[in-house]
Amino acid sequence: MLRSVRSSLRPSRNVGARYAVNSRVLRAAYTSTALGVEPSKLEIQHAPQLKPKPDPSELRVFGKIVTDHMLSVPWNVLTGWGTPRIHPFGKVLLDPHASVLNFAQTCFEGFKAYRTPSGKVALFRPDMNMKRMQTSAGRATLPQFDGEAMLELIKQLVRLEKDWVPSKPGYSLYVRPLLIGTEGTLVVNPPSDALLTVICCPVGPYYPEGFKPIALYGTTEFIRAAPGGIGSYKLGANYVTGLVAAKEAAKHGCPQNLWLQGPNHLVTEVGTMNAMAVFKHPDGTIELATAPLDGMILPGVTRNSVLALAREHASGNSRIEGLPDNFVVSEREIPMKEVQEAAKAGALVEFFGTGTAAVISPVNRIRYLDEDVHIPTGPDGMGPVSKSLWQRLVAIQTGAIEHSWSVVV
Amino acid sequence: MLRSVRSSLRPSRNVGARYAVNSRVLRAAYTSTALGVEPSKLEIQHAPQLKPKPDPSELRVFGKIVTDHMLSVPWNVLTGWGTPRIHPFGKVLLDPHASVLNFAQTCFEGFKAYRTPSGKVALFRPDMNMKRMQTSAGRATLPQFDGEAMLELIKQLVRLEKDWVPSKPGYSLYVRPLLIGTEGTLVVNPPSDALLTVICCPVGPYYPEGFKPIALYGTTEFIRAAPGGIGSYKLGANYVTGLVAAKEAAKHGCPQNLWLQGPNHLVTEVGTMNAMAVFKHPDGTIELATAPLDGMILPGVTRNSVLALAREHASGNSRIEGLPDNFVVSEREIPMKEVQEAAKAGALVEFFGTGTAAVISPVNRIRYLDEDVHIPTGPDGMGPVSKSLWQRLVAIQTGAIEHSWSVVV
Repeated sequence: MLRSVRSSLRPSRNVGARYAVNSRVLRAAYTSTALGVEPSKLEIQHAPQLKPKPDPSELRVFGKIVTDHMLSVPWNVLTGWGTPRIHPFGKVLLDPHASVLNFAQTCFEGFKAYRTPSGKVALFRPDMNMKRMQTSAGRATLPQFDGEAMLELIKQLVRLEKDWVPSKPGYSLYVRPLLIGTEGTLVVNPPSDALLTVICCPVGPYYPEGFKPIALYGTTEFIRAAPGGIGSYKLGANYVTGLVAAKEAAKHGCPQNLWLQGPNHLVTEVGTMNAMAVFKHPDGTIELATAPLDGMILPGVTRNSVLALAREHASGNSRIEGLPDNFVVSEREIPMKEVQEAAKAGALVEFFGTGTAAVISPVNRIRYLDEDVHIPTGPDGMGPVSKSLWQRLVAIQTGAIEHSWSVVV
Repeated sequence: MLRSVRSSLRPSRNVGARYAVNSRVLRAAYTSTALGVEPSKLEIQHAPQLKPKPDPSELRVFGKIVTDHMLSVPWNVLTGWGTPRIHPFGKVLLDPHASVLNFAQTCFEGFKAYRTPSGKVALFRPDMNMKRMQTSAGRATLPQFDGEAMLELIKQLVRLEKDWVPSKPGYSLYVRPLLIGTEGTLVVNPPSDALLTVICCPVGPYYPEGFKPIALYGTTEFIRAAPGGIGSYKLGANYVTGLVAAKEAAKHGCPQNLWLQGPNHLVTEVGTMNAMAVFKHPDGTIELATAPLDGMILPGVTRNSVLALAREHASGNSRIEGLPDNFVVSEREIPMKEVQEAAKAGALVEFFGTGTAAVISPVNRIRYLDEDVHIPTGPDGMGPVSKSLWQRLVAIQTGAIEHSWSVVV
């Protein structure tokens, strides 16, 4: 195969033809198992000196402190995935015309390593992140990889950095895999070279002094996603577009924005989190509702976990203390008008965001078309439904409750 | 101001608050003239050895060969734009959690330097690119700059690299300014640090052996842009999204795709070019039509230039040989159905893309919903309308006709 790959990479006469050829080349390279990620070839270069571990008080700003080491795995269209290396944390060297810098060829992931009660280190559902990363890579025409092999390498890194995993409740080690196109080119093409890096950052609780509900600004001027777009993929390109919306929210005194989609202002996401609402219906049913995975919603791991736990309770399979008996879980369209009217009628029980960083982020107000929608929150800042789900989720994440979602490294 | 900036950058308790503060900080920094780009401070470090200039035959692949030097200008939220440096071409060093790598905080530009008949070097409408780059930077919450000052620095770079500007007809030096967020952070925020780089690549004609019309695949599965999105900005994020569409086009044997927007399949762009169609109406009028700048269309400099020349002709102010007498220019919605029916009725005169790289790129076929729409092209691959406009445009770009658009460095 390699010979045909090489000959097809010769300069061709026009960009279109080159693209057409490269597309075949890349498909071949993606599917070749001979070019896969090989954990057995891992090379480890230890940092000559380890940094002092930070005091918890230094972890108030998310993702500013990095550990001693990082993982790098290069990829080339001809030779596939190269030698994985764990090495001292350092800069990435890129051509100024690298495709990630010019054409945003990048996708990433984020998950956390927790200290369990017995002192072990456990990752929360990292297989979900590996799967999503492959989907994202496909959307950005970045190379595919064996998720299990890549996860094995990440585990090696986390094992090496295990002393960085905080033991204080609410603290964890955030793991950030990143896959970027590194080919230096002015032509918009699938890259001939790519790089996967993984870094680790010790992080504190999102709300160090207890749950502090936030106000959201309902964004109708900008969009996060649209049908046929990239909303359901964890591409960097999904994040740059939200910065102006966050800026607009800040102008209105709101720390985050609520993405309201289309003419019906459907509730989709909260800033960079999934959005959930809890309604009380006339028949006494309590409904936990979130937007369906219609191609515009990021399939959040926390979203998935919250829904799964809620459904276990609703079905009676595994009851969660504090959740109501008449409980239903819906993935459905939620027009903002419904939220507003429910709030006015006293039928809106809670509203919150879910994501890896904050886990659950309660909302007490939504600024919507020059009106304030007020949302109840419990005495400690979190409503009864989200608090019960949060408690169960955190118990699983930290290993206080044994669960297959928690993977000891 | 600096003191308040510094104090407001202290770690705050939650991301939202940090955002709100940073937003004010950035606005202040953006608008401060004391923190502007200063060409008088330019430092030049010459490459110890100059590379041999390439033979024209080596320039068949666009953007693979770079010149000896590049320009770098760093930016920081506290200190503004730093010392501009022209230095040997080299790698950019970035943190693996730099915002450009993770959140696609990047915008870029592209324009060309041409060798004039008298041996001078001229840039084509670089002021348009500087203006567009500022608009793009704003959408990505990247720092603003003085476009004239930045252009002066770019001119210095082009002057230093003037021997790299090919004199062979159809050849030029492509100039690529790039602005990226460089702050190492896991938080999605306007960056505290950024970097502007400019590189130069000698490039050949897009079609080295004459105009070769291309076939387009009408994309209805994916979108390039949507209302409230970033379609009208030159952000990297607009390019990564198109890769799967180009891949799908390649599967159908088409080297480029045609973006068909919304339920009416409006003709918007050709791959990474603006799209233009020429219709013959029953009254004998010849209409040059392109999509309006409705927020979803990149305001291309070549698009603008072609429209301006065409309107000069249509108004009788400056006739262009080969263009019809009954000539009108429209920026309007063009449903693909209209193109298809015009082609069947013999009323579609031409269809082409416009952009900096190819200037004008004729199209001879559009694959649309399992049907082929055939489009006439002239005997040498280019129809009479596009050829006449192309000849005038190239004459201006290369300085054969004197024009204010051509800026000697």
